[in-house]
Amino acid sequence: MRLALDAMGGDLAPAAVVEGALHFAAAEPAVSVVLVGDEPRVRAHLPPRPPPNVHLHHASQVVEMAEPALAAVRSKRDASVRVCFELVRRREAEAAVTAGHSGAAMAAALAVLGRIPGVDRPALAALFPALGARGRCLLLDVGANAECRPQHLAQFAVLGAAYVSACHSVAAPRVAVLSNGEEESKGTRLTREALALLHKSDLDFRGYAEGKDLFSGAFDVLVTDGFTGNAVLKASEGVAAGLTGLLQRAVERAHLPARLGGLLLRSTLAGLWRLVDASEVGGVPLLGIPGVGIVAHGRSSPRAVASALRVARRTVEADLEGSLAGAIARSRTWLPTRAVKGSKGKTPEPI
Amino acid sequence: MRLALDAMGGDLAPAAVVEGALHFAAAEPAVSVVLVGDEPRVRAHLPPRPPPNVHLHHASQVVEMAEPALAAVRSKRDASVRVCFELVRRREAEAAVTAGHSGAAMAAALAVLGRIPGVDRPALAALFPALGARGRCLLLDVGANAECRPQHLAQFAVLGAAYVSACHSVAAPRVAVLSNGEEESKGTRLTREALALLHKSDLDFRGYAEGKDLFSGAFDVLVTDGFTGNAVLKASEGVAAGLTGLLQRAVERAHLPARLGGLLLRSTLAGLWRLVDASEVGGVPLLGIPGVGIVAHGRSSPRAVASALRVARRTVEADLEGSLAGAIARSRTWLPTRAVKGSKGKTPEPI
Repeated sequence: MRLALDAMGGDLAPAAVVEGALHFAAAEPAVSVVLVGDEPRVRAHLPPRPPPNVHLHHASQVVEMAEPALAAVRSKRDASVRVCFELVRRREAEAAVTAGHSGAAMAAALAVLGRIPGVDRPALAALFPALGARGRCLLLDVGANAECRPQHLAQFAVLGAAYVSACHSVAAPRVAVLSNGEEESKGTRLTREALALLHKSDLDFRGYAEGKDLFSGAFDVLVTDGFTGNAVLKASEGVAAGLTGLLQRAVERAHLPARLGGLLLRSTLAGLWRLVDASEVGGVPLLGIPGVGIVAHGRSSPRAVASALRVARRTVEADLEGSLAGAIARSRTWLPTRAVKGSKGKTPEPI
Repeated sequence: MRLALDAMGGDLAPAAVVEGALHFAAAEPAVSVVLVGDEPRVRAHLPPRPPPNVHLHHASQVVEMAEPALAAVRSKRDASVRVCFELVRRREAEAAVTAGHSGAAMAAALAVLGRIPGVDRPALAALFPALGARGRCLLLDVGANAECRPQHLAQFAVLGAAYVSACHSVAAPRVAVLSNGEEESKGTRLTREALALLHKSDLDFRGYAEGKDLFSGAFDVLVTDGFTGNAVLKASEGVAAGLTGLLQRAVERAHLPARLGGLLLRSTLAGLWRLVDASEVGGVPLLGIPGVGIVAHGRSSPRAVASALRVARRTVEADLEGSLAGAIARSRTWLPTRAVKGSKGKTPEPI
């Protein structure tokens, strides 16, 4: 198996990306990692004799975090993230992995690979740590599609359920639409129409859920538009970072007994930090493209990059693309889609 | 000063509400509290001789948390929350306070008091604990108006800024529109049009903010539609409750040194819990009604009820209604509003 890794993507690239690739390559000798990026800059972080399963593929351009994604991907045809997906298209890699601009990753995937037939809008997903036995909840879309129609939310439900079935071994995922209340009279026109569609589906559809249900363990998949999903994701990251930061500072500034308490609690607290630490989650796939594309957090550390590569390997092994395509095909009995010929229809503008 | 308190509102009513009223009345002998609710049920929680500044006003009906707010307020004309606002309208109380259904509070306020001239959509606000010197950020709307137009978001900005100026002594509040990215190309049609309006305003308007900025301390007021605001608020409450719960359980289950650590850290942790504890915040006003209406958290403890009464007293003293009306009047040079004759136009459906 070969994984194409965007060496230029992420706040700490290329140093952290290359270091993460080396960790992964050492642990998984049967998998090759292709570092895609500016050759001299990437090579500067490689040892004189790289391991045999680490390769370098030159790409002369980079999409910066602040750039408008779609325009950047269109104009920079040799951008590292785009070249990763070109390697997937040419079957020189089984998956593309990036910690760069997630909007650019989606735009590049769409431009190069197109969409799975029947999918109007591929989505970005985020995994939330949840209470309960399953321990996580998938939210999508979290930013690829700021404005959505009811059938898009229904497609997100099909894609999300197929993903957690295939890659997280959840047999019958419990799916709901994120809303501002549990009663079906709540929500907006968008959510009420999505509800009507999903009640006709063959999913284990549970109606509306609220923001707190991302953590309650009552659902496996929540769907929403990319505007709301992004706001919810970033607010949640903000609370988690703020609370853990406050706790750390409180412990540091406290009087001696409390400082000692913080010391004694260290391993317990470390377990908590991990829950809110991007490096443990490692990456989520772009859902709806014909191929595997994994997006890791922009602040990914070497450990997070290695973790994203492991997610990529497992996602390839789980045949995610096949699962998604099958689920979308089966949903055609109840889910209207825009007529799409082949997999490369007009690409919607990702955010 | 007289404050009308919905004795039947909240998960722990009437017991916790009456207890909170008694605490407040003992601490503030110059302020009267009118307990509005079912007389025998409320009296059961009062001492045989209530203090002279605690009064009882019978109301025969209650809006339950699960009821559709608007229909309940319309059909139950003697509902405790509605009677509170009737007392305000008849000038028998300076403020209405409830820990009940916030949608019902908004519906009752609109039905009884109407709106401040020039305000199309009164809003529900939430105060988030933020980093930095000011320590808080106001988000509105968080659920009164699931679907909004650009001028509604601009009005929320005016109302929110006037509120934090009048009641939290913030001289020039920094205002932004919640979006899915900081670049002005992001967002939806709604947010982009609100941005264009607000750039013409006389507010200290900073453009877009992201979900994490609720806690970053970079802004004093963030505006959004009530659907997104509600999802963000409930997700944030979910993360905070989840993290603090996990920490508490981790400490309880830990081996002895960590348990000891938890004990030594107790006062430090208590400070953290307070940050995420509804009882410390105490209540936020309905913004845009001609009168003071304070909504406390549904799970309010006696301490939280007493705190909400203090917020009500301070809000009356700060002449919030005058500040809001003045700010809305001044905004007419740049902010289009629906033509409203008098203060009782057609009331929009609150959620």
